[in-house]
Formats: sequence, structure tokens, C-alpha cells
Amino acid sequence: MYKVKVFVTLRESVLDPQGGAVQRSLHSLGFGQVEDVRIGKYMELTVKESDQDIDVVVREMCEKLLANPVIEEFRYEIEEGVIQ
Amino acid sequence: MYKVKVFVTLRESVLDPQGGAVQRSLHSLGFGQVEDVRIGKYMELTVKESDQDIDVVVREMCEKLLANPVIEEFRYEIEEGVIQ
Repeated sequence: MYKVKVFVTLRESVLDPQGGAVQRSLHSLGFGQVEDVRIGKYMELTVKESDQDIDVVVREMCEKLLANPVIEEFRYEIEEGVIQ
Repeated sequence: MYKVKVFVTLRESVLDPQGGAVQRSLHSLGFGQVEDVRIGKYMELTVKESDQDIDVVVREMCEKLLANPVIEEFRYEIEEGVIQ
């Protein structure tokens, strides 16, 4: 069993209005020292072992469904041998 | 300047219908080995140095705005001395 952590973030060049809204809220709560906020997605997947290479499988899942490669970037971490 | 990475996840006991939907989509795309998906948020904050302790500041931001402590858990990583 693998525990896979996927991080999906907007590309640097893509505007992040949600992040801007959070930053303004933080400012109005008194956290004026926050210069920038970027919002992304974080996914935890539990994946069964199979005869396919886990790295290839995870990359394919990200490219096909979990991230939109036009505007988003992804990275992932794979932990092996997790007992449920 | 600090770079802060915040991970917000649903508490274990809270149902994650969005994660369930992603899991079903992965199954229908042929990734039947995916046993579980949990969706969370990932935020990258750039924070200026101030006279307040950065750890205290980030914890307070999470508790007040970035996470809903009733249904969500958070953890964060702080990287120091990031040059923009």
C-alpha cells in the first residue's frame, strides 16, 4: 500500500484571485505582514500495489485528472508500505 | 522573508464527498488501485519578518481564517530567509 501526497499549484504566471481574497482577509484581521498568498490543492491518495510502477501511475493520474496542466503544476510524494 | 506552506485537511471523521468523486473518476479512468482519496487545501504564503514570532503568527492565521477547526486540521512548514 502506498500513501501518495499530491500538491497542485497554479502556475506562477496565472492570476490567483482566491489567494488575493485570502490575503486581503488576513490584512483586515491584522496580519499586514503577509505579502502574498497562493492557493493550491492538496490530495492524499491511498493506492494499492500493482504490477505497474507507482511513479508512472501517479504521474498519469495527475496529468489526466488531478491537475490541469494548462494552468497548474503538480508535484507528489510517495510513501511506501503504509499500513491502513 | 518567510515562505510558509500550510496544509489543511478534513478531520478523519468527516466525510469527504469531493474525494469520493475523484476516486470514482480515477476508477473510471482505469486507476482501480486507488483505495481512498482525501482532498485538502495547500497554501503558500510569503510573510515579512516582524517582531512577532512567526510560528505564533502562522498558527493564529490558521486558527482564525485558513482552517475551520471544527472540521479541519492544519499543519505548516516555515522556510526562513527566502529571497523573492
